Amino acid sequence: MSSNLCLMLFLDSLMTASTALPDFASSVPALLKRLDASLDRWLPAADTDPHRLHQAIRYACRGGKRLRALLVYASGEALGVPLEKLDAPACAVELIHAYSLVHDDLPGMDNDDLRRGQPTVHIAYDVATAILVGDALQTLAFNLLTDPANALDARQQVAMIASLAHASGPLGMVGGQAVDMESEGASLSLEQLESLHARKTGALIRVSCELAAIAGAASTPVAQALARYGSCLGLAFQIQDDVLDQTADTATLGKTAGKDQAQQKSTFPSLLGLDTARQRASDLFDQAREIAIEISGQPAPLLWLADFIQKRDH
Amino acid sequence: MSSNLCLMLFLDSLMTASTALPDFASSVPALLKRLDASLDRWLPAADTDPHRLHQAIRYACRGGKRLRALLVYASGEALGVPLEKLDAPACAVELIHAYSLVHDDLPGMDNDDLRRGQPTVHIAYDVATAILVGDALQTLAFNLLTDPANALDARQQVAMIASLAHASGPLGMVGGQAVDMESEGASLSLEQLESLHARKTGALIRVSCELAAIAGAASTPVAQALARYGSCLGLAFQIQDDVLDQTADTATLGKTAGKDQAQQKSTFPSLLGLDTARQRASDLFDQAREIAIEISGQPAPLLWLADFIQKRDH
Repeated sequence: MSSNLCLMLFLDSLMTASTALPDFASSVPALLKRLDASLDRWLPAADTDPHRLHQAIRYACRGGKRLRALLVYASGEALGVPLEKLDAPACAVELIHAYSLVHDDLPGMDNDDLRRGQPTVHIAYDVATAILVGDALQTLAFNLLTDPANALDARQQVAMIASLAHASGPLGMVGGQAVDMESEGASLSLEQLESLHARKTGALIRVSCELAAIAGAASTPVAQALARYGSCLGLAFQIQDDVLDQTADTATLGKTAGKDQAQQKSTFPSLLGLDTARQRASDLFDQAREIAIEISGQPAPLLWLADFIQKRDH
Repeated sequence: MSSNLCLMLFLDSLMTASTALPDFASSVPALLKRLDASLDRWLPAADTDPHRLHQAIRYACRGGKRLRALLVYASGEALGVPLEKLDAPACAVELIHAYSLVHDDLPGMDNDDLRRGQPTVHIAYDVATAILVGDALQTLAFNLLTDPANALDARQQVAMIASLAHASGPLGMVGGQAVDMESEGASLSLEQLESLHARKTGALIRVSCELAAIAGAASTPVAQALARYGSCLGLAFQIQDDVLDQTADTATLGKTAGKDQAQQKSTFPSLLGLDTARQRASDLFDQAREIAIEISGQPAPLLWLADFIQKRDH
């Protein structure tokens, strides 16, 4: 079964379950199609010269849960932002995420063969192509935020590029990845582990909410609340990731299971135990829901997204 | 002797030789100091957490001819643009150039141990750090163009990010690098070789001139002339590079000499012969000088820079 079909079936089950939140749930399949159409428009065609590079760029962007893009759309809809102002930031966060996966999977980094249920880019193509694909995806992410057709004014474009660069650069995602590599085999405290993940995965999840606030010209308190919502989800997501790495199988995950233990990494379950880690994630999801309700506007999309992430199995 | 000291001595000799162009020549050492001070301000401090990553980021930015930054300053001065509007684009092109070198030198790419007379980043640190350093340098390049303190308005910032992303992405530098990797062992036509290098090295040299035109809000004809000037220099630079790879030694180059032949690459000397290649470069430098004189304003900085590049030995 393709990962896209799995995602659709999962969304379907969630839509049935979340009868209290029908509006956003029912729009998610259309948002995912919208995202794919936007990516298709902004990525160079696969037959652009050089062909192999451009085919590999599109290969790297296939599948995935599109969680970060959905966070942009959900946050934007909570604030009543028109969809056409959300397409560029939704694509940009997905391209940054895709680039980080391509580079993290390289032999010199995590050396992984499987991603989203398919061979990683350096396996399907080669290492040089994978390095260049990651580089190109980062460039494309910033470039599409400058597109005059993206319904954002120049100040919003600059603010988004600044926020996305901060979140994904050496003080954010790249810095977190560096700490993660350095920490293999080391025993981290809970505080150190949370700090690592606030950067490695949290910063990009949080900035997905912040970009929607920029698109909607939200007030500072609303933007800050959205950022706190994103921080809670980001940390909960990572605790879940650690739990799933230990408890799920490779076929379900679509990436190699049990890697944390093999790489002797400190994880939330290894520090807290499996049950306490699960409880901590659950508390963070509840906290995110409380913040969503505090935010003026329509909390339904944000509540739906907290459910969506909490119920994931990969 | 440090590469910086070499550069200073070379500049000194050029200053003495170019008595017809005293103004720009005499300002170059101050511009290089200004560039270093700007980089120092925009790069995170070496003791920023994670330390090793931030030390490696600064290591990757050391030395070099700073040719692309000088092109920004020279083009800007030719148009009468205040220096404070040129610092950000000058730093941005150098950071993009530095990131491309760090990734090109990786074992999965050109696998080179020596750059700017020092061990490459993956030798001085490790492969994972080098991948992350390149990623971070690209992010920092786009980020500093958004800085409210860079004396550019939001529209200029967006235009610069768009131009720089286009020049350095899959349709520009990264695409050229991909073609270069694919072409190892293949026989290219002169047209194919020029197209490859117009992307791999030419695009970033050309955009250095274009960014100055954006900073100066230049008219379209002036911006186009500057771009043509940049294209001539870019191609001449690459022909020179091929000639130097074949004729200079590793110590002078600061990087491994004779790599093109070892990697069975098509080069301008291999297609044209050494003398014809040299003549073609010389013609292109003359063409660049003619364009510089056409451009209204002060051609002196652009003439000086054509001399500067033409006389380089590394």
